Amino acid sequence: MFADKMILRIPGPTPIPPRVQQAMNQPMIGHRSGQFSDLFASTAERLRPYFGTSGDVFILAGSGTSALEMSVVNTLQPGEEAAVLVSGAFGERFAKICERYGIVVHRLEVPWGEAVTAEKLATFLADKPSVQAVFATYCETSTGVQNPIRELAQVVREKSDALFIVDAVSCLGAVACEMDEWGVDIVVTGSQKAFMLPTGLAFLAASKRAWEVIDRKKPLAFYLDLKAYRKSFADKTTPYTPAVSLVFGLAEVCNMLEEEGLPAIIKRHELMRDMTRAAMRALNIPLMAQDEFAAATVTSCHPQDAFDPEQLRKVLKNHHNIVIAGGQQHLKGKIFRIGHMGYCEPLDVLQVVAAIELSLRQIGAPAELGAGVKAAQEVLLTHV
Amino acid sequence: MFADKMILRIPGPTPIPPRVQQAMNQPMIGHRSGQFSDLFASTAERLRPYFGTSGDVFILAGSGTSALEMSVVNTLQPGEEAAVLVSGAFGERFAKICERYGIVVHRLEVPWGEAVTAEKLATFLADKPSVQAVFATYCETSTGVQNPIRELAQVVREKSDALFIVDAVSCLGAVACEMDEWGVDIVVTGSQKAFMLPTGLAFLAASKRAWEVIDRKKPLAFYLDLKAYRKSFADKTTPYTPAVSLVFGLAEVCNMLEEEGLPAIIKRHELMRDMTRAAMRALNIPLMAQDEFAAATVTSCHPQDAFDPEQLRKVLKNHHNIVIAGGQQHLKGKIFRIGHMGYCEPLDVLQVVAAIELSLRQIGAPAELGAGVKAAQEVLLTHV
Repeated sequence: MFADKMILRIPGPTPIPPRVQQAMNQPMIGHRSGQFSDLFASTAERLRPYFGTSGDVFILAGSGTSALEMSVVNTLQPGEEAAVLVSGAFGERFAKICERYGIVVHRLEVPWGEAVTAEKLATFLADKPSVQAVFATYCETSTGVQNPIRELAQVVREKSDALFIVDAVSCLGAVACEMDEWGVDIVVTGSQKAFMLPTGLAFLAASKRAWEVIDRKKPLAFYLDLKAYRKSFADKTTPYTPAVSLVFGLAEVCNMLEEEGLPAIIKRHELMRDMTRAAMRALNIPLMAQDEFAAATVTSCHPQDAFDPEQLRKVLKNHHNIVIAGGQQHLKGKIFRIGHMGYCEPLDVLQVVAAIELSLRQIGAPAELGAGVKAAQEVLLTHV
Repeated sequence: MFADKMILRIPGPTPIPPRVQQAMNQPMIGHRSGQFSDLFASTAERLRPYFGTSGDVFILAGSGTSALEMSVVNTLQPGEEAAVLVSGAFGERFAKICERYGIVVHRLEVPWGEAVTAEKLATFLADKPSVQAVFATYCETSTGVQNPIRELAQVVREKSDALFIVDAVSCLGAVACEMDEWGVDIVVTGSQKAFMLPTGLAFLAASKRAWEVIDRKKPLAFYLDLKAYRKSFADKTTPYTPAVSLVFGLAEVCNMLEEEGLPAIIKRHELMRDMTRAAMRALNIPLMAQDEFAAATVTSCHPQDAFDPEQLRKVLKNHHNIVIAGGQQHLKGKIFRIGHMGYCEPLDVLQVVAAIELSLRQIGAPAELGAGVKAAQEVLLTHV
């Protein structure tokens, strides 16, 4: 095996397209130069369609978590109340950030693998009139569940005056998001998922309603002070040093996304999701998420006692050079997760399915060779 | 001119060595993989000599400012007192971060171009017994002044129980730093200066004394919570997503630094400083910093009314493909600054000096062609 041919089928980071690698390789330029300012401003503007906003998209040097925190520290003050929808590990992270700053958190928890529905949220908010922000996770990476953000936004709008703040880290750029139309106030995401970049950048967009709140509040942190980013962005720059090589890459990613077109990108991800799910079903491996709430970017499988997911992952990696993800927290060692996102196409899904079949045989688990591949191929044929 | 041959002679970002570019180009790997953990832990350990510490060095996805903020939010609480040594734009940044969190700031200000001396600090601290942390800038990039950190540390130790926290962003890796021996409690730096990387990483090391304080305090922020980094680092990882491609590059930077050796690196920078200063003197361009406090990594020149520094910079860039820096804040348009740091060697100094001479002639300023180059060559000859 060629060590440098390792195939990433985890839900981020995703493989970097060669032309993006190439773009990041450009000679360094000063981040206060006009050349960089022009690139930065135009690239930020090109991100708007993926958020579904006519407002500014801010580019931050930091991880997705830094953007989650940014959405908290600019909109709330200690002692104020927030509702956090917790359907897995990343919903819980929002809660922890809020608690760090002394914000009163109301958790709406559902079992891992389930989605937060509009009905549940409506009931939950009914007796909490003081909630000033509702935090939700679009794609819960830890379980492969995609929460119904559009419907949840409607509930928030109808039932409260709270801001609706969404972590879209592991799906934005691969799924529909119309924050202006749906009434979502803040959307954050990261670079290493559907945006096909290395880790290191986060993106955030805020609604007019959100800005009205932000303008009234004192930011609780410094590096993540959104008003400082807005002020600098008016001059096509950032308050603190931006990650220049990643922005070079991002501009090339925008070229790729525009060439394919967002509707086609969304369809490709839905197709890969349907292929993966059909394959796992054909291999008798139970899926964690219901069809209705299945993430377009990552599929979680729960083999129960049929085989050890960690053994499967080991063989996949050592014998077939493909990396898939395991479970997090209480699901560690119990599930496996297949990423199908970003620089990934239907033939790649066939490849990972074939490798899973082989690996299952190698660890002595029952698996009909080719059965999963065939099921996925059939799904693909209905789309060509 | 070849657009991609633009030469950066600004005090960061500095040019990226081709072998580091190459290293950053490696295929993406999972940041929770054992492969990355091993690389991350060993690379962090290789940074220790540049800080002069036997303790851990933490690697953060963020700009230098994020690390400055990290040093504040883990060591102080609102209402507590700090002394901030302000000798330019970056000293002032420490003060602003402290004030954002409600920390009481005592500023020790000196005119831009001067250093904070041990005597001044001793007098300043004498009537401020409640100060819990003293913040200083090692190299003040905005003026080209290098503050005498070793002597300042001694004063802090003798006169108070405060922590001594140092911003070494624009010099660490190019100058001596022995934080353990000198009694410095926290040192922070960034990736895009002497470490020859793109922007996007920051490094921080803390003393045992600092950790005793940190362990007693509640962190004021989330992403920058140092205790979370320590906990994850014990497992060779980070609490939030690290910037993987930059860490690939950093490992290769460590190879380069170790091949040259720190004493030789320090000598090279001192030589480039002395060459640059001799050249400017030969061209009758006044220097901002005194010899005793001149930065090894950046030289600031104040031409008074002899010529317009902005015109010089424009011609240098448009005709000679070399970028130097202008002034910041009240020195904007009044000074120019030459970076000689990182992937830069004595012959590069001769090149930028030659280009400055040409440009001065092109803007009608008096300059003897070759005079600056010759002065720099003479300095170089005494070292070979």
